[in-house]
Amino acid sequence: MIRKLYALCGTDRTRPFSPHVWKTKLSLMHKGLDFDVAPVGFTQIPRIEQGATKIVPLLRDGDRLVSDSFDIALHLEATYPERPPLFGGEGGKAAARFVEGWSQMTLHPMIGRIAIMDIHDRLDPVDRAYFRQSREQRFGKPLEAVAEAGQADIETFSAKLEPLRHMLKFQPFLGGDGPLFSDYIVFGALQWARIVSRQCLLADGDLVTAWFERCLDLHDGFGRSVTAA
Amino acid sequence: MIRKLYALCGTDRTRPFSPHVWKTKLSLMHKGLDFDVAPVGFTQIPRIEQGATKIVPLLRDGDRLVSDSFDIALHLEATYPERPPLFGGEGGKAAARFVEGWSQMTLHPMIGRIAIMDIHDRLDPVDRAYFRQSREQRFGKPLEAVAEAGQADIETFSAKLEPLRHMLKFQPFLGGDGPLFSDYIVFGALQWARIVSRQCLLADGDLVTAWFERCLDLHDGFGRSVTAA
Repeated sequence: MIRKLYALCGTDRTRPFSPHVWKTKLSLMHKGLDFDVAPVGFTQIPRIEQGATKIVPLLRDGDRLVSDSFDIALHLEATYPERPPLFGGEGGKAAARFVEGWSQMTLHPMIGRIAIMDIHDRLDPVDRAYFRQSREQRFGKPLEAVAEAGQADIETFSAKLEPLRHMLKFQPFLGGDGPLFSDYIVFGALQWARIVSRQCLLADGDLVTAWFERCLDLHDGFGRSVTAA
Repeated sequence: MIRKLYALCGTDRTRPFSPHVWKTKLSLMHKGLDFDVAPVGFTQIPRIEQGATKIVPLLRDGDRLVSDSFDIALHLEATYPERPPLFGGEGGKAAARFVEGWSQMTLHPMIGRIAIMDIHDRLDPVDRAYFRQSREQRFGKPLEAVAEAGQADIETFSAKLEPLRHMLKFQPFLGGDGPLFSDYIVFGALQWARIVSRQCLLADGDLVTAWFERCLDLHDGFGRSVTAA
């Protein structure tokens, strides 16, 4: 059986950028599970698998369909317990929700603003229209005004990584000695930035940069299969 | 054997406020372990147990002396594995370092600025002098100027709790269904604020407020043994 992963794409299908899909790809690699990728644009999502989902990643795993990167990780951990753990026990599973909260409420909004025009410009025309309309509704202003606000985020981004730096003084990964799903959560956000934007958000010599490079090396350098923008 | 916990105190020994000591007290309660508290002022710390530590909490547990709230939690988990877990496995232990990073790099600096004069005013005269000198050196400005900067922190504090709110949509504690050391880490910071400052940082109806109240209820309401300022 080959698993099928529906994954967001822009015009260039060789440069998948969705942070959530990166989390799931690394989760599948971590478990050593094969999968085929089915790239979809924003406006195709409601039509896949008979309207099974409004979001990607969506994973077809045999007769199971699971969406949302966290739910997919839970599904993989429950279904393949004999393979390397993604959470490292119940405490790790619970704490991963906090890591998700931190990544999505702190890093994602900043990267979303910093890279908003880059993301827009990488989409197919039909998806560009959807993206502009939905994001302008969410932010209450034109994309270009959001991008302008993003200039201030560039200055403050590094300071937001202090919790990671503190952790990295004690251990090489959020998962401890090796990576767990929590690492993939934060990696997904920074990989998204790396692929869509030329804005350098990680400085040389930063503990976070060294951790991110370690994550890029994982699973035979899978994260490097897409080059930086 | 009675354990001895050296704990920071101000002039009023019935109102211990150190966030780190609160983490350790709740860790000991969580494990169901008895302990006596030995209150010490800032300037007494270098003299306890023949100069064994520069920081409190310091726990004497039989012939072991352990300082630092995280190291004490690790010690308790390793020494009393048959009692309720503080980390919930290796993944939880690793992630707790990130929670510590978030709490100490995000919440602590804000609370430290907001409550700096409250803390100062609650100390013995000799400790006030030490506190002013060491904090003015750290901040590079008079305590009163730090307190003024803290006014801006009051406005932005609630937004900093978004990662917790995201997590609390899925589960009642950082530890999942019940509390783990990660909960005590964040609780310690907010309990510190609750005890030293009259500034209300948590709003009614907030998911974080409900979680904090649950934490205050733990272990027969141990957190409520000191009233709010």
